[in-house]
Amino acid sequence: MTTQDHLKKAEKSRYERGWEKLLEIDGDAGESVIKSLKNIAPDLGRYIIEFGFGDVYSRSGLDLQKREIATIAALTALGNAQPQLKVHINAALNVGCSREEIIEVIIQMAIYAGFPAALNAMFVAKDAFFERDRNNITSA
Amino acid sequence: MTTQDHLKKAEKSRYERGWEKLLEIDGDAGESVIKSLKNIAPDLGRYIIEFGFGDVYSRSGLDLQKREIATIAALTALGNAQPQLKVHINAALNVGCSREEIIEVIIQMAIYAGFPAALNAMFVAKDAFFERDRNNITSA
Amino acid sequence: MTTQDHLKKAEKSRYERGWEKLLEIDGDAGESVIKSLKNIAPDLGRYIIEFGFGDVYSRSGLDLQKREIATIAALTALGNAQPQLKVHINAALNVGCSREEIIEVIIQMAIYAGFPAALNAMFVAKDAFFERDRNNITSA
Amino acid sequence: MTTQDHLKKAEKSRYERGWEKLLEIDGDAGESVIKSLKNIAPDLGRYIIEFGFGDVYSRSGLDLQKREIATIAALTALGNAQPQLKVHINAALNVGCSREEIIEVIIQMAIYAGFPAALNAMFVAKDAFFERDRNNITSA
Amino acid sequence: MTTQDHLKKAEKSRYERGWEKLLEIDGDAGESVIKSLKNIAPDLGRYIIEFGFGDVYSRSGLDLQKREIATIAALTALGNAQPQLKVHINAALNVGCSREEIIEVIIQMAIYAGFPAALNAMFVAKDAFFERDRNNITSA
Amino acid sequence: MTTQDHLKKAEKSRYERGWEKLLEIDGDAGESVIKSLKNIAPDLGRYIIEFGFGDVYSRSGLDLQKREIATIAALTALGNAQPQLKVHINAALNVGCSREEIIEVIIQMAIYAGFPAALNAMFVAKDAFFERDRNNITSA
Repeated sequence: MTTQDHLKKAEKSRYERGWEKLLEIDGDAGESVIKSLKNIAPDLGRYIIEFGFGDVYSRSGLDLQKREIATIAALTALGNAQPQLKVHINAALNVGCSREEIIEVIIQMAIYAGFPAALNAMFVAKDAFFERDRNNITSA
Repeated sequence: MTTQDHLKKAEKSRYERGWEKLLEIDGDAGESVIKSLKNIAPDLGRYIIEFGFGDVYSRSGLDLQKREIATIAALTALGNAQPQLKVHINAALNVGCSREEIIEVIIQMAIYAGFPAALNAMFVAKDAFFERDRNNITSA
Repeated sequence: MTTQDHLKKAEKSRYERGWEKLLEIDGDAGESVIKSLKNIAPDLGRYIIEFGFGDVYSRSGLDLQKREIATIAALTALGNAQPQLKVHINAALNVGCSREEIIEVIIQMAIYAGFPAALNAMFVAKDAFFERDRNNITSA
Repeated sequence: MTTQDHLKKAEKSRYERGWEKLLEIDGDAGESVIKSLKNIAPDLGRYIIEFGFGDVYSRSGLDLQKREIATIAALTALGNAQPQLKVHINAALNVGCSREEIIEVIIQMAIYAGFPAALNAMFVAKDAFFERDRNNITSA
Repeated sequence: MTTQDHLKKAEKSRYERGWEKLLEIDGDAGESVIKSLKNIAPDLGRYIIEFGFGDVYSRSGLDLQKREIATIAALTALGNAQPQLKVHINAALNVGCSREEIIEVIIQMAIYAGFPAALNAMFVAKDAFFERDRNNITSA
Repeated sequence: MTTQDHLKKAEKSRYERGWEKLLEIDGDAGESVIKSLKNIAPDLGRYIIEFGFGDVYSRSGLDLQKREIATIAALTALGNAQPQLKVHINAALNVGCSREEIIEVIIQMAIYAGFPAALNAMFVAKDAFFERDRNNITSA
């Protein structure tokens, strides 16, 4: 292999690590976000995979359950990212958080970001739980 | 006791549960916030104790380490609450989170709230860790 | 009564005071928010009643019209709480604010939070006023 | 003319300059926002025209392409003004920015406001581009 | 006078109305903001006077006390405008609001924007009240 | 070289491209941010270099002046990132924007994020310009 080939391989490796992590955490919903970027800004999807999942979510030092707790807290507090919040409520359940834990995080955000932020996030959780029940997803 | 006395006692009980939880989590820094409200708005301090700690942080369903992870994530993302972030970085250490976990949460927020929010929070963590080292606080 | 019974009564009293205040201010819309939390996070609804309405809105020192002016201003500025803004535009009318006052508050927010925030809030007001007219609510 | 007439004329002149600038930049979409305010808060529409376009967008010192780049960046970062973002993605194209430039600005916002803000803005851009293609708007 | 002269006069009239309103509401603190813009962006100061005070604060339909209640609520909720919040806490007192009303507005914001926003605003109020006491400002 | 060596080289190459871009745009101020992260979270600094500058700022499709215009707009609007805003006001001047253009972007943000956000950013610009004058930085 030429050096150029090795460079491509390294990028691919970071991409592949990210892609596996994305599928592990977000499942189909993550893949669907990446697909929806394909004919407008595929590189934004690539950065989500490479930086978001290949770099950050692949780090040690904080387990995946705590990572998802942190993400749900942040997205609830920011209040302007409901589609991403739904993806990560499912992600939290996928990596083993309980529904009760998710509800507790959202309630706690009333203290830090106010009741409207908590309310709007809770209704997203309600939708996400309802869809899982309807689709017989049994993990949580 | 008259009913009125019992009512006061009930409120006091909720207050006392909150006060104990506040001291367990935030330690002196929490007490100092409440004191600083005394001659301007003592009721705001009372609500922090009663609602924040007596109601929410006293709930089961999410352990204190995960609660503090959630709070650090939210305050990092909101970006306009640096004094409170510092209190909760110390709180996270007080309840058994590691410095590494706190750093990981803040790094992860770069994905959801951008690098400036993560940077500004990291410098708060740097200050908090430095003060603990200087004061020989050994828990973490 | 045992002390335990009195404690329960005190909590109930705070809840009841909040519930009455909620109905006075928000009417059916408030009740409907609480109901929608019932099978996901009833305690979040309880905190809205107890803390939001039993504690804060029941305070003296600021009349209800000014309280609603403040809430409309805040929700317009935050810009991520449109369902709650609609509830409080109706609440402001319920406690005696005029439509003109609500419109003025929203216009003024263009100075502090920008024109998009003011515009999006104004369209919520337009909806709320339209619904009141359609339902022949005559208070304002 | 009396002084009163001249005053009215001056205001009208500022209004007219703004109106022309609004049509040049935002086209029909701008006009439609103003119209939708007519029976609720026409003065808010007048301020958008007079202050927003008659004062600010009519200034020299920054060309219209850079002004629209700035607006798209801000609305992407704020994340709570999607209808206005769509108007200004079209505006940017109307004044000569390329689709690629708009996509680049939105990708860059992932650094400063996080990936959810960038993602949600990108989907607004996707919609806007799709509508232009469907309507055979050929400028960009 | 030529038409050009009349145009200038009309602008001056709007400016003068705004300047008087600014002094009435904000007093020296408002004047000092305008002065501090003089050698960097005097037009931004002019827009604050003309649009902020000449247009909006001069409107009828909402009295000045309610206007200041709305502004304090918004600046507390936004949480990133502490110098402006201080100016408007003084402004509220200047137009006849009581200290108690200001404290109540800030406490209420804990419901809508969270406790950190309310806390940080309360400490600004504490500073503002302290300075007024020290300077023997007797209005409130 | 083993494949492992090539992988490291590829990462290094992305890092080096980012580092050169960071120095070109932000100069010493950028380097100083990275250094300040060294003993707390060096990986956050590495991601700024690799993702922020190696990936995003190295992209074609938007020239560096427009990239800095976008960043100043976003940081002004967000209002909670004043240290980063100062770095990028200097960066904008470094890549050839004029002081007038920076002032215009900040004034324009009054429309989208309100006057307090514009005011606070303008005072950051005033500081940055003053320091450049004092240090005889002649580029702008």
